[in-house]
Amino acid sequence: MPKVTFLPANVVLDVPSDENLLKAAMGAGIHINASCGGAGVCNKCRIFIEEGKVKGEELPEGGWKACATFPVTDVVVRVPVESQMDRKALTRPLAKKAAAWIKVHGEKVQVRSEPAITKSLLSVPEPSVTDNLSDLGRIRREVGQDFHLEVDSQVLYRLPHVMRDGNWQVTASFMETSYPGHKRLIRVESGDRTRGQHGVCIDIGTTTVSARLISLMDQKVLAESSDYNPQVSYGEDVISRMEFSRKGNGLNILQEKIVICLNKLVSELLQRAGKEKEDICLCTIAANTVMTHFLLGLETRYLRSAPYTPVANRFPPVRAREIGVDLPNHVRIFMAPCVASYVGGDIVAGVVGVGINHHPELTLFIDIGTNGEIVLGNQDWMACAACSAGPAFEGGGIKYGMRATVGAVEVVHIHPETFEPMVLTIGGKKAKGICGSGIISLLAGLFMSGALDRQGKFRRDLPTSRIREGRDGWEYIVVEKEATAIGEDIVFTEADVENLIRAKGAMFAGYLTLLESVGMAIEDLERVILAGNFGSYLDLEQAITIGLLPDIPRDRFFFAGNSSLMGAQVAAISWPKFREMEEVAQMMTHFDLADNPRFMDNYVSCLFLPHTDLALFPSVKEALKD
Amino acid sequence: MPKVTFLPANVVLDVPSDENLLKAAMGAGIHINASCGGAGVCNKCRIFIEEGKVKGEELPEGGWKACATFPVTDVVVRVPVESQMDRKALTRPLAKKAAAWIKVHGEKVQVRSEPAITKSLLSVPEPSVTDNLSDLGRIRREVGQDFHLEVDSQVLYRLPHVMRDGNWQVTASFMETSYPGHKRLIRVESGDRTRGQHGVCIDIGTTTVSARLISLMDQKVLAESSDYNPQVSYGEDVISRMEFSRKGNGLNILQEKIVICLNKLVSELLQRAGKEKEDICLCTIAANTVMTHFLLGLETRYLRSAPYTPVANRFPPVRAREIGVDLPNHVRIFMAPCVASYVGGDIVAGVVGVGINHHPELTLFIDIGTNGEIVLGNQDWMACAACSAGPAFEGGGIKYGMRATVGAVEVVHIHPETFEPMVLTIGGKKAKGICGSGIISLLAGLFMSGALDRQGKFRRDLPTSRIREGRDGWEYIVVEKEATAIGEDIVFTEADVENLIRAKGAMFAGYLTLLESVGMAIEDLERVILAGNFGSYLDLEQAITIGLLPDIPRDRFFFAGNSSLMGAQVAAISWPKFREMEEVAQMMTHFDLADNPRFMDNYVSCLFLPHTDLALFPSVKEALKD
Repeated sequence: MPKVTFLPANVVLDVPSDENLLKAAMGAGIHINASCGGAGVCNKCRIFIEEGKVKGEELPEGGWKACATFPVTDVVVRVPVESQMDRKALTRPLAKKAAAWIKVHGEKVQVRSEPAITKSLLSVPEPSVTDNLSDLGRIRREVGQDFHLEVDSQVLYRLPHVMRDGNWQVTASFMETSYPGHKRLIRVESGDRTRGQHGVCIDIGTTTVSARLISLMDQKVLAESSDYNPQVSYGEDVISRMEFSRKGNGLNILQEKIVICLNKLVSELLQRAGKEKEDICLCTIAANTVMTHFLLGLETRYLRSAPYTPVANRFPPVRAREIGVDLPNHVRIFMAPCVASYVGGDIVAGVVGVGINHHPELTLFIDIGTNGEIVLGNQDWMACAACSAGPAFEGGGIKYGMRATVGAVEVVHIHPETFEPMVLTIGGKKAKGICGSGIISLLAGLFMSGALDRQGKFRRDLPTSRIREGRDGWEYIVVEKEATAIGEDIVFTEADVENLIRAKGAMFAGYLTLLESVGMAIEDLERVILAGNFGSYLDLEQAITIGLLPDIPRDRFFFAGNSSLMGAQVAAISWPKFREMEEVAQMMTHFDLADNPRFMDNYVSCLFLPHTDLALFPSVKEALKD
Repeated sequence: MPKVTFLPANVVLDVPSDENLLKAAMGAGIHINASCGGAGVCNKCRIFIEEGKVKGEELPEGGWKACATFPVTDVVVRVPVESQMDRKALTRPLAKKAAAWIKVHGEKVQVRSEPAITKSLLSVPEPSVTDNLSDLGRIRREVGQDFHLEVDSQVLYRLPHVMRDGNWQVTASFMETSYPGHKRLIRVESGDRTRGQHGVCIDIGTTTVSARLISLMDQKVLAESSDYNPQVSYGEDVISRMEFSRKGNGLNILQEKIVICLNKLVSELLQRAGKEKEDICLCTIAANTVMTHFLLGLETRYLRSAPYTPVANRFPPVRAREIGVDLPNHVRIFMAPCVASYVGGDIVAGVVGVGINHHPELTLFIDIGTNGEIVLGNQDWMACAACSAGPAFEGGGIKYGMRATVGAVEVVHIHPETFEPMVLTIGGKKAKGICGSGIISLLAGLFMSGALDRQGKFRRDLPTSRIREGRDGWEYIVVEKEATAIGEDIVFTEADVENLIRAKGAMFAGYLTLLESVGMAIEDLERVILAGNFGSYLDLEQAITIGLLPDIPRDRFFFAGNSSLMGAQVAAISWPKFREMEEVAQMMTHFDLADNPRFMDNYVSCLFLPHTDLALFPSVKEALKD
């Protein structure tokens, strides 16, 4: 991998030969003016190659476009004076992911394979005049007397044929019941089919559905697939979908849509892995409370308004076919249990997926999505809450906010003296808007450069044309219209800032409130686990800078990725882990923050950057001193 | 009730004023020649009224037709010399039912009401902001923590509506599981519906299906209904139906037919009792092994030939709807467990219905049908067998045999000197044939009068024209053609006698074989229980005379009626009794008599009237002396 030296900062790093030098500079904390996001249209990101060979675009006036130039050999790059950051900026902690990925169950061999449904090969003696026990009696005898066996009536139809076709070799599928040691015979197949022991685990999010096919015995992921939740057409968020579900056939439509999506994902998984439906034993699904209700076709009317009562929080295993999922008749779906209307099976699955219930350390589990659910606790106790953070971090309520797709501004660096931005877009295409990570990046950059004050107002007196009074009030021009895909300036407004401050304030007030409720404080946190897709893309330093995450030693942070899917996967592999979810859901104390006066007090204190009380953010306080 | 004195025998008895004097005489053991069965056509049953008033038919030559004459006041009747029995005949024990009806469970309050499915009224606190447990959680809380609750997923769909519609009064139906103390929530209804706790219990016989609607809590029988098994159109016996089931869609046809019959019976029961489907909690069904397989739609191919393997002997509870029975979705059918191919749930239900498993006395349970199943044992052990007696006692293989319907000869008395018969038909109509009880009556009468020898051959030298050589060998004319409905003589042939001797021989050899297998003998029997419809109509003395029943003190005999239906009824009322059936089925040792050399030896010894060894039949031996 080519070694690239950036001058005058004299920062050296390895850069893959397919990564352009603008992106490499951003990763190294080197500022290069670049406002088109890498689409190659603003021509501002000029650099000079002092040594070595590159390929890419030379500028007519000399130098190369950083956003379109790639290292071929080791190179020495000089960033011209107009782009350079000063030393002060360089002393800031590097804006990159500092947190470790947490080692979760299922990724390592930490969980024994004990799925809720298993297959066993039975060699059954052929009946004779002296041993003419019934077919089912022969199975019972093989299984052993100490094993109290329930039987699905459907098994009986196939049994005599299966036994004889397989020459008395029968693969029997047993399902665990709620009673330890007691199983239920749910399927018989001829001959040895024990190799086909696979599970499908699914995370149904409000926006995205992700699925994996796993081999239950060796715990391998055989295929992955994901798609948008097609219910999005009937409402972006859970509230609007609950509204829709109440009209006419609404609930049925939502139920059908998600089932169609699951069927598509399952068939993709099978195709990718070269497996058949018959190879699947079970399906585990983690979803928030509303998504769980929709999947099962349950009434959400009473979930929608106070006192927010779900039909159920713990769900019995359901036959996949009963709800329309096209899997063999015996396959059961196990739904992760929920805690309350806004703390669902996705959170419970995440908590068990990352094993909070097995660690003594005081842990804060954060899933930032539309609501922002949090869990505080350890192996002995847990408290949880939904923070009503709103969708700002997903781009909702932000003037040029958008989802994290091609053309979204995903990283921004603000030059601390010129206030010129360095912008990267997803796919290096012309900017269409700003996604969640770009929004946090912008907010943190503008705040740290001094362009925004602690109240979230732009300083009106700065020597830059990028800050101006627009139609919607004061704003910062992120990408000028010439460089965008939409023919207008992409701006970041004070109203956007206000929304973001409210959102991060709700989250932080949530942490504080849960901590206070158990007589603890931020500094007592031993681990912070960032869950969800959004969490995985989060820039830790920037998130701390704006006050979204607590300012504690960085080695206490862990990324968990899609922990909900991970939890579903762990529960597919291990029935005891599924039971743990039920225990965890039961042990969690749910705090309804909406009515909590302490939460309101905390929230008000959080409506500053990073917080009213700077003592809570020592590293940000330190950086602001400079 | 008028008092009737028969002269010259000087027998006095009470006779209902709607009972004709022929029937009354038969009941009193008074012989009156009468060969038309009471149809009033033979004019042989002349009697003279010496005192009192009668109404009916006077004969032109003087006297009255006994078969058409009824007492109005107390009367003195003289039977003319040509009809009279001699004194010797009168000393025989009266040919009437001497056995008591057994007191079975369910008729008396001996079983506590603990049905497998019960309803409870729950008053659930309405949710509030401080108590917003899920709907299902509220039910769980009411039910109590010590009660580990499984839940049918279907319950969830109705739950939120049911709770609110009933203003938080919910009637919940719970089903027992295999695990003591653990129940399953299978149904919720708004408000108090606990009064609707009814059960349907059904006995599916090869020929007849009988059903009862019972109130599970007060154990009352609310309605009864029965019908022929419509599968009869596809085969009279189980063998021919199993043949039919193998062809094309045969199994489906048989399954559908019996389900249509059950649906008809259930709707009749509900109509008669003025109840609704929703009032039914459960259904218990007792049937032989083949009928059980057909009802569930199970393969009988391997049940039909050696080694005679059923698909199952113990069946999981089945949703009524799953097999097409039109009852609410939560209603389960509990099938009585079977023991082997020819010892089915009807027998097991009968054994538990009459409580053999709770009595220390050595008991022989006899169900005489096509096969003739027997159980020997007590509370500690049981042995069972099917005797392959064949259908002779149901009229099968008997030249003029017929079912017990109107016009069937049901009782016959043979004059010990003239060999003239005294015949009664069912309904007093012209004879069409001879039913089971008539057949036994004939065989016993002909044997005791000396018309038949111990080998079952007619004496050729008797002074009567009733015994003659016909087309099919020697025969006895029971009803002359002038008096029949079929325009031909109804006769009883030596071939018929041979068939009957084989049939009763198979039964008796069965008793002996089971007894020998446990080192016991006939005189050790402390109770003999006669089950089934046929058993209820059996004339005990006649049955002993021909060697069908053992010659032991008469007070050891008990009639149980339809004990299979009684067992189903007990199991409906009491889940522990249903579990007892499973234990009884498990504890029974099944003897396959077909391959048993001792059975063959015993069988050969039984091919005499009443048996080769007259010492086994002391009372018959005594009677024959005269």
